[in-house]
Amino acid sequence: MSNLTLSDSRAISGVDRSTLAARYREVRAQTERLCAPLVTEDYQVQACNETSPPKWHLAHSAWFFETFVLGPLAPGYSPYHPQFGHLFNSYYQAIGSFHARNQRHVVARPTVEEVYAYRRQVDECVLELLASAAEGPYEVVAERVVLGLHHEQQHQELLLMDIKRNFVANPLLPAYAPDAPRAVGRAPERSWLSFAEGVQEIGFAGDGFCFDNETPRHRVFLEPYRLASRLVTNGEYRAFVEADGYGQAGLWLSDGWKTVREQGWRSPLYWLEREGDWWEYTLRGLEPLDPDSPVCHLSYYEADAFARWAGARLPTEAELEVAGAGRPVEGSFVESGHFHPRPARDEEDGQWFGELWQWTASAYSAYPGFRPLPGALGEYNGKFMANQYVLRGGSCATPRSHMRPTYRNFFYPQDRWPFTGIRLATEG
Amino acid sequence: MSNLTLSDSRAISGVDRSTLAARYREVRAQTERLCAPLVTEDYQVQACNETSPPKWHLAHSAWFFETFVLGPLAPGYSPYHPQFGHLFNSYYQAIGSFHARNQRHVVARPTVEEVYAYRRQVDECVLELLASAAEGPYEVVAERVVLGLHHEQQHQELLLMDIKRNFVANPLLPAYAPDAPRAVGRAPERSWLSFAEGVQEIGFAGDGFCFDNETPRHRVFLEPYRLASRLVTNGEYRAFVEADGYGQAGLWLSDGWKTVREQGWRSPLYWLEREGDWWEYTLRGLEPLDPDSPVCHLSYYEADAFARWAGARLPTEAELEVAGAGRPVEGSFVESGHFHPRPARDEEDGQWFGELWQWTASAYSAYPGFRPLPGALGEYNGKFMANQYVLRGGSCATPRSHMRPTYRNFFYPQDRWPFTGIRLATEG
Amino acid sequence: MSNLTLSDSRAISGVDRSTLAARYREVRAQTERLCAPLVTEDYQVQACNETSPPKWHLAHSAWFFETFVLGPLAPGYSPYHPQFGHLFNSYYQAIGSFHARNQRHVVARPTVEEVYAYRRQVDECVLELLASAAEGPYEVVAERVVLGLHHEQQHQELLLMDIKRNFVANPLLPAYAPDAPRAVGRAPERSWLSFAEGVQEIGFAGDGFCFDNETPRHRVFLEPYRLASRLVTNGEYRAFVEADGYGQAGLWLSDGWKTVREQGWRSPLYWLEREGDWWEYTLRGLEPLDPDSPVCHLSYYEADAFARWAGARLPTEAELEVAGAGRPVEGSFVESGHFHPRPARDEEDGQWFGELWQWTASAYSAYPGFRPLPGALGEYNGKFMANQYVLRGGSCATPRSHMRPTYRNFFYPQDRWPFTGIRLATEG
Amino acid sequence: MSNLTLSDSRAISGVDRSTLAARYREVRAQTERLCAPLVTEDYQVQACNETSPPKWHLAHSAWFFETFVLGPLAPGYSPYHPQFGHLFNSYYQAIGSFHARNQRHVVARPTVEEVYAYRRQVDECVLELLASAAEGPYEVVAERVVLGLHHEQQHQELLLMDIKRNFVANPLLPAYAPDAPRAVGRAPERSWLSFAEGVQEIGFAGDGFCFDNETPRHRVFLEPYRLASRLVTNGEYRAFVEADGYGQAGLWLSDGWKTVREQGWRSPLYWLEREGDWWEYTLRGLEPLDPDSPVCHLSYYEADAFARWAGARLPTEAELEVAGAGRPVEGSFVESGHFHPRPARDEEDGQWFGELWQWTASAYSAYPGFRPLPGALGEYNGKFMANQYVLRGGSCATPRSHMRPTYRNFFYPQDRWPFTGIRLATEG
Repeated sequence: MSNLTLSDSRAISGVDRSTLAARYREVRAQTERLCAPLVTEDYQVQACNETSPPKWHLAHSAWFFETFVLGPLAPGYSPYHPQFGHLFNSYYQAIGSFHARNQRHVVARPTVEEVYAYRRQVDECVLELLASAAEGPYEVVAERVVLGLHHEQQHQELLLMDIKRNFVANPLLPAYAPDAPRAVGRAPERSWLSFAEGVQEIGFAGDGFCFDNETPRHRVFLEPYRLASRLVTNGEYRAFVEADGYGQAGLWLSDGWKTVREQGWRSPLYWLEREGDWWEYTLRGLEPLDPDSPVCHLSYYEADAFARWAGARLPTEAELEVAGAGRPVEGSFVESGHFHPRPARDEEDGQWFGELWQWTASAYSAYPGFRPLPGALGEYNGKFMANQYVLRGGSCATPRSHMRPTYRNFFYPQDRWPFTGIRLATEG
Repeated sequence: MSNLTLSDSRAISGVDRSTLAARYREVRAQTERLCAPLVTEDYQVQACNETSPPKWHLAHSAWFFETFVLGPLAPGYSPYHPQFGHLFNSYYQAIGSFHARNQRHVVARPTVEEVYAYRRQVDECVLELLASAAEGPYEVVAERVVLGLHHEQQHQELLLMDIKRNFVANPLLPAYAPDAPRAVGRAPERSWLSFAEGVQEIGFAGDGFCFDNETPRHRVFLEPYRLASRLVTNGEYRAFVEADGYGQAGLWLSDGWKTVREQGWRSPLYWLEREGDWWEYTLRGLEPLDPDSPVCHLSYYEADAFARWAGARLPTEAELEVAGAGRPVEGSFVESGHFHPRPARDEEDGQWFGELWQWTASAYSAYPGFRPLPGALGEYNGKFMANQYVLRGGSCATPRSHMRPTYRNFFYPQDRWPFTGIRLATEG
Repeated sequence: MSNLTLSDSRAISGVDRSTLAARYREVRAQTERLCAPLVTEDYQVQACNETSPPKWHLAHSAWFFETFVLGPLAPGYSPYHPQFGHLFNSYYQAIGSFHARNQRHVVARPTVEEVYAYRRQVDECVLELLASAAEGPYEVVAERVVLGLHHEQQHQELLLMDIKRNFVANPLLPAYAPDAPRAVGRAPERSWLSFAEGVQEIGFAGDGFCFDNETPRHRVFLEPYRLASRLVTNGEYRAFVEADGYGQAGLWLSDGWKTVREQGWRSPLYWLEREGDWWEYTLRGLEPLDPDSPVCHLSYYEADAFARWAGARLPTEAELEVAGAGRPVEGSFVESGHFHPRPARDEEDGQWFGELWQWTASAYSAYPGFRPLPGALGEYNGKFMANQYVLRGGSCATPRSHMRPTYRNFFYPQDRWPFTGIRLATEG
Repeated sequence: MSNLTLSDSRAISGVDRSTLAARYREVRAQTERLCAPLVTEDYQVQACNETSPPKWHLAHSAWFFETFVLGPLAPGYSPYHPQFGHLFNSYYQAIGSFHARNQRHVVARPTVEEVYAYRRQVDECVLELLASAAEGPYEVVAERVVLGLHHEQQHQELLLMDIKRNFVANPLLPAYAPDAPRAVGRAPERSWLSFAEGVQEIGFAGDGFCFDNETPRHRVFLEPYRLASRLVTNGEYRAFVEADGYGQAGLWLSDGWKTVREQGWRSPLYWLEREGDWWEYTLRGLEPLDPDSPVCHLSYYEADAFARWAGARLPTEAELEVAGAGRPVEGSFVESGHFHPRPARDEEDGQWFGELWQWTASAYSAYPGFRPLPGALGEYNGKFMANQYVLRGGSCATPRSHMRPTYRNFFYPQDRWPFTGIRLATEG
């Protein structure tokens, strides 16, 4: 019997062993593929407190399988190294102590090579356990492995976010993927889609995996509303910058204005002005700012101020979920290899998924009847339900298979290093 | 024609001149009555960044009438002092510069006496304007005066909050109201009230005054829920303290736990442990902790952690508004003269209003269709809609006439100096 | 037998009782005369961490007599108030706990009136003890009273420093002594005085009182040197400001440059630029900058950078002491009532004493063979012998009778609120 | 004609070309030998703001030759990389901008390999210049190269200091030189050496190289004094620790006590207490605390408090220089390969040089008549003459050929990561 309540354990236990093992190999390999462009020195860098060194991500995602799968479920398993538990625990208070987050860059040893060896050893044991577990225990193993793979995918996105933030902090502005394709095109005019009032259901309800914070499915009442037909573009946002949007207190939330002043913000995180021209740092390197691409890497405060300036507002998470519910989960995910959002292709391209995480006006909080996972895994999502905002839709750094319409991402309103963007809303 | 859109301008314009003038005199006098126990030195103190010196409150609430009533509406009015606009503006960016909030204690001059003279002068001009304005302009004047009086009442509560915080910072622990009556009694057992699911309306809709943030009235869907029959008591909270509630990370939101550690919190703000006994600092002085009185002066984080420990949760603002909607706005308000919450008298005493502001699980945000007041007054409420939580019900420091069931107060989750308490909720 | 080793106890014990009592009354009264221009609110203000509220100075200097004279020496004396020891101890670890320095402004009670009553009571007891002590104990009492009076005089200067700093923090810029006389005149050209090389003696050696840090008298070798004939003027310093002295890293010590950038310094502390004109805030109010008056209220870093710019350096404390040793201790002290330094009158007016404390290039450290006072009084001077610089000569805020050529004042190199100035030196 | 005034340019110009070239090769190679135990990840680490990544030291010491030798003196030289000037300038304001000191760990590229290539290229050009410069220019080249080599040697010591600080920050406590020899022995009893009063000369005067801050040689008067016959040992310091030396305010300078409380100091930097036993982290790894070895890695505040507790004081720099002047510059320097101070062998072993830098009671300041080097090199020493203390004698991390009796090292009183120790002094 499982002590882990996922959304639908039948769905997971239905996954046969060889399929899950193949999936495991594939996801784990993808993490390492994303690291291929790195030199050893890159693995060690932590440009600011929010980020982690790539090496740490590699080790932490191995630690997750060791701690939540191998330790409790693999008979006779003993930890790979007595101090890795301390070094690579992120924040699970119930598991024990953990190394100071902002000191991760200090840990030169284990080396990159040793961390890869650690991963190999964990992989071997997990695959062995998947193959050998008896029928009953296998269900629990499978549930946990599935969770670990979704966790690994979250760190795949964090890897790209953190690499971008680390690289831009280097005055030489190195490029992560200089040869990645660049999507060009003319973004269509923005139009408005209308949604009727009424009681709606949101939250996860289908087969398959979801995080605890997407449950339970429940009812909300939505007043009539309208959503923009695509994301806000660089060109549109540049008009806000040039209209002195960053200098007008009246456009900003009080905490946002304080942040603008303290941080000296004058544009989105990766914009650079050089002799009157705007450039944008991307994972492909420094590029002239493309007016048709979606504006990205802005805080909630900037998204909110822009919306106010534009006579609109940000959508709530329920509004976005209802709007996206029937649509295919398509868009530019990490597999597209662009590592940057693409301009909307045409009027049909609503950019509902992929491209950029869309800030919502909804503070991150528990759904009515929410119960976190039991035990230490209960710290996964629930304890962050304060002071953060929900984002929806996934980004060009998200694995495609990681996304679904009920997915709730969350960041602090001042965070700018995630791949974030803006969709406008208004009353219906 | 007014450029100030309050909830129902007919209601306000219906107030005849002499009634409004009497109301003005009464509210303004009440502010000064609350200051009667102060010596000159007390007026100058600002114990921490959140608070203001009492003298500043007196001056700022005069400045509000000067800036929003006399300046724009009294023909030929010129400011009382050329720099009071800078000194006593709180945060209205659209009005001009303002003195650094945390430096208010530095401004010894104008003296207390001079500030009272400033108030007298403003009073004279406002009363004169109320008497002399022509019919059309009178409507606008009256609207603004009514807003100013509600603003003044908010500062009456802030005065008491700040005086308490200032006094407790003095190692001599002086008492503000040593002779205030003390309510004693045995709090009844807590029971649960059930509420059915369904679409409900919340937000202000009646006649009379409300703040912009209470509008527009709109529909929400509530899943079935239950609310506790009264507020949490000191005795109940003490059990949490003694069960090492402040030492168990698993009970806390992540940001809450960080705050607990950084601030060294071990109990609510005004509790003191001396040789094994618990005491509570009140505006009446230091008293032995009364197990039957409602626990007060705790942060959102503490309210949330206690609820989790108790197997419950905090209610949403909609749940509380619906529950309180039909009930009389009765309870211990500032006029009771207790300056401290009272134990629930019996099972009928639901403590829905007065006593203590009740933390809700709702982040402070805009209602669908919300429009802030035009002009500088738009900064009154809207710009604070981030990172704060809604509180409902009023407190023993709130004027009775200031309260209504739709009233939305808001504070940061770490704030402990307001008169806050806890009502538990669970799923229905 | 005394356990307090002052420089020459015979000198002090030679003071007859009635003379010392008269002296006590006079010094104590002078403290209160300096407070005469204050309103009650002024007594409460602490504009920054370095300063203390005037009320605190009044209470602390009474506490000093209570703690070091009455407590140990007056038979049967019991403390005036059980918590004043905690509230008004400045920093004596050996005496017990003390209230946080930067929270002094929070203590509204005891009130100003109560603090004056405290002083009255202490005065009565000290005078009674001076009159009644038997011959042997009297010696100790007298020594301690003399120390207490010099301590009181130090706080008289601190009072003026702190009042000036408090008042300038008020945007209304109130004046402390609007009717104080203003000395005007044309400063003579600066010339250089030469001093020969050789072994010299410095440190206190005469009769009368000195602080422990002035002892023992000892020998130093001085290479030949020259000192400027007067203090640097506002006019001379203004040339440095206008030559972008605050913008040239090469003129500054590394820590000084860091401070200039972090604090945004562009001129001495009390200079204000308004529409191209320079003004100076003084205890008499805001005045146009007088080019002939000595430049004042600058940090060691500014004094050092100016000297470098001027092709000179700051003198050492030995150089200054030797130069001043034979000269009369004359100049503008607090008794002159100017509350501001005066221009040098003529070429004979060397400004060796009074006017402004002169920064020296000497870090504050122990003389060879230095022994601090025994017991808690050993904390008076010795524990500050790190990271500070010696200043010499006294200022227009120093009591005349408090000064002598061996006197060593000390402040941190970033401090600007003392009455400081610059005398240049060069090699001989 | 040279524009660089070193102590005796004849001495340097006397160095023939092939000798200097050999010396160049040797010093540069030594830097790289010290890095041999590092893995690539180690080169990237910066454990705290005081330290730099090893990679940065390698690049900066190449930059020094490029900036002060090749750029101005090698005909037609153009910089190796357009941005290395910004990246690897340490603090020379006159040279141009420099990268934020505490962000050095963020610069992953250039890689370690690329930095070594940079060094190779600089080496080639310097050696070519040494070989080809005409007679006149050669003198200047030689002077600058000699300065650059002394600069390189300073960074050799910094490399070891920083590696030790970086490694200890890793919870795995890796060892830099696990096989380095360990000197054991019984430290002799401490005795006192007496020195007579009189005028003495200090400062550099001989042939050969010195830094500007050691000049000019000048006279000082010393009162009679005594110096301890050897450095303070771990055993002696442990007695201070166990006598609650870190808990007694009365032993500490005021700023020292503040630091002790804020930083939670309870022992020297690299001491660890585990289950009642004391251990010491060394470059050889974690070792049981050896009572006979000199105590090391303490701040000025700790050295001063220990001396006070021991009834002694710290010596001045003049006292130490006079005492060491006639003695051979012998002791354990970096070439010994111990990487840790050794116990005094016998009563003859005065530990005057090598082993540990000895804190002096002398604040770092200019000698009378001091003139910094002209141009940007004037920033080398002079601008740090505030808030630091002089240390004398060199350490087990200092190259032997870098030391001389007049050498003035300097650090802030709170610094603990240099190889520092204590020699006691008293009055004679």
